[in-house]
Amino acid sequence: MLKNDLLLRTANGEATERPPVWLMRQAGRILPQYRAIREKLSGFKELVETPELACEVTIQPVDELDVDAAIIFSDILVIPEAMGLPYEMIKGKGPLFPKTIETLEDIDQLISGEKAAQDLEYVYAALRLTKQELNNRVPLIGFAGAPFTILCYMIEGSGSKTFSKAKKLIYQHPVWAHRLLDKITETTIVYLKNKVAAGADLIQLFDSWAGVLSYDMFQHFALPYLRKIATALTEVPVTLFAKGAWHSIKSIAESDCNVVGLDWTMIPTDVRKTLGAKQVVQGNLDPCYLYAPAAELKKATLQMIQDFGGSHITNLGHGVYPDTPLDNVKVFVNTVKEFSYQVV
Amino acid sequence: MLKNDLLLRTANGEATERPPVWLMRQAGRILPQYRAIREKLSGFKELVETPELACEVTIQPVDELDVDAAIIFSDILVIPEAMGLPYEMIKGKGPLFPKTIETLEDIDQLISGEKAAQDLEYVYAALRLTKQELNNRVPLIGFAGAPFTILCYMIEGSGSKTFSKAKKLIYQHPVWAHRLLDKITETTIVYLKNKVAAGADLIQLFDSWAGVLSYDMFQHFALPYLRKIATALTEVPVTLFAKGAWHSIKSIAESDCNVVGLDWTMIPTDVRKTLGAKQVVQGNLDPCYLYAPAAELKKATLQMIQDFGGSHITNLGHGVYPDTPLDNVKVFVNTVKEFSYQVV
Repeated sequence: MLKNDLLLRTANGEATERPPVWLMRQAGRILPQYRAIREKLSGFKELVETPELACEVTIQPVDELDVDAAIIFSDILVIPEAMGLPYEMIKGKGPLFPKTIETLEDIDQLISGEKAAQDLEYVYAALRLTKQELNNRVPLIGFAGAPFTILCYMIEGSGSKTFSKAKKLIYQHPVWAHRLLDKITETTIVYLKNKVAAGADLIQLFDSWAGVLSYDMFQHFALPYLRKIATALTEVPVTLFAKGAWHSIKSIAESDCNVVGLDWTMIPTDVRKTLGAKQVVQGNLDPCYLYAPAAELKKATLQMIQDFGGSHITNLGHGVYPDTPLDNVKVFVNTVKEFSYQVV
Repeated sequence: MLKNDLLLRTANGEATERPPVWLMRQAGRILPQYRAIREKLSGFKELVETPELACEVTIQPVDELDVDAAIIFSDILVIPEAMGLPYEMIKGKGPLFPKTIETLEDIDQLISGEKAAQDLEYVYAALRLTKQELNNRVPLIGFAGAPFTILCYMIEGSGSKTFSKAKKLIYQHPVWAHRLLDKITETTIVYLKNKVAAGADLIQLFDSWAGVLSYDMFQHFALPYLRKIATALTEVPVTLFAKGAWHSIKSIAESDCNVVGLDWTMIPTDVRKTLGAKQVVQGNLDPCYLYAPAAELKKATLQMIQDFGGSHITNLGHGVYPDTPLDNVKVFVNTVKEFSYQVV
């Protein structure tokens, strides 16, 4: 039994004494412990692929920040790699795929489903080990990239400001795009079910590049696949975080998910008008607010909690930025932990 | 007198026979004529700083595409340069500022107002020459970066995915940020008044990075300066295009502007519900739609025109991407030009 199950109770729609709090990218460069490990390694992928190390950095923020959840240290790009497109992580630049998707044949040659997912044993091992080491202190979150976001990387081969190459393929060959999205979805479902079997208590999908899509494109090429994955994951609560898809939070909420992730452009009081008081949401302070003086950060955090008014998992509206002062991360976390819904 | 004043009649709120059409970045790499000139030059800045060349590439899309407006070929970064922060344009990478703003002293040392704006004689010369060469065929649009977007470059020194350095300064030193925004605004007003005196028939402000701001931040650090500039420009219509500021289009419309620019994430029918039938808007087809088969592009363009239902300047929701097929740019333009509001 979990000693702290606040995240799961909230995700399941129960009224709780305060919102749970964790931070996207909490396992990472904000922590001196993480930087110390990272310095000794050849690169980012060594950390992702070594269960003992992934476990260690996953637990660091639980020790240091006392957050209400751990999130397994990994990368959304393990999926394209398992499907046949290996990636490199270039220092100061980000991911790079030497091989990308250009033709229907490329799509047909991708490995998918069980066969791809079984290639990610190191992830499941990291989850099992972390689950054991956490010793039920807090829930363990598993995650994956959303199919549209993974498609973006598979076609572009790297990050992009516009993802116009990925969108070009979708506009020119919508049938290919759907075939690719199907294969990614199929793989992601097996992968996430394996993660749950290995100990994940909640699953979050990151549609990091949803914001480059128009409403129509999001509805056709992103949402159906998010929904399919959420529906398939019956064992644990699911959070869908489609960054920039402000126009579609209602349809995300109406899909089969438990929690709607919100970026920092969403206005809490407006979100409540759109989604109602009971929809569980996660977010959404501007990560740059953690650069502000502590008193202002505290005020903004409390304001956000009050504006959401319950059914709320406190987080930032994006991953915490690497140069965020650790003291302010603690101010953010502690502000939430000292809060109580009764005294509002 | 202008032979084609459709853009200005629309911007001024008159009912017109069809929407005018032009494309953001229409003077640029989509045109073979532009690429031919560009190949002969040492770099991008030579084009911006040589009035005869800027004039030539400004008129190219009017000749080739028969659009309803010309927009002076220039760059929003001429303002930081005139204020004392010169920029370089690095091939394949974008702008780079060797010197950036870090302290209050840096801000205080910036040149501003008349003194900075008088340094941009080459821009005014390009406008005068273009106005003469256009011979009143179509209106000439002048533009500037919005103060927040210029602040971003001044602090970051280059593009950024998050503009977290710029936002950090705002969160840590809001008073400095306002002082910097004031100086940029003051300079931009003189600059744009000079552009109008040199022949600009309409002014567009580009708040290209507005999307990184939360609603509150946009309201405090972007909108007031957009409004101040729009109010100061009494002589010509003003378009405010704050990309990504979906939450604030109503307050943009209520500022002193004539036209609200919309990115491609905005849903035309919803925009009409928010802004009413009479607010003139500009946009907003996804630039990637120009990769689609011509028949689909045509259908989407007509749908957008019908959904906006008048008071509409047809454009993309972002600058046209450099690798867009010229034939499809023509399909887009001609679809609008063959349309008539009477036959809907």
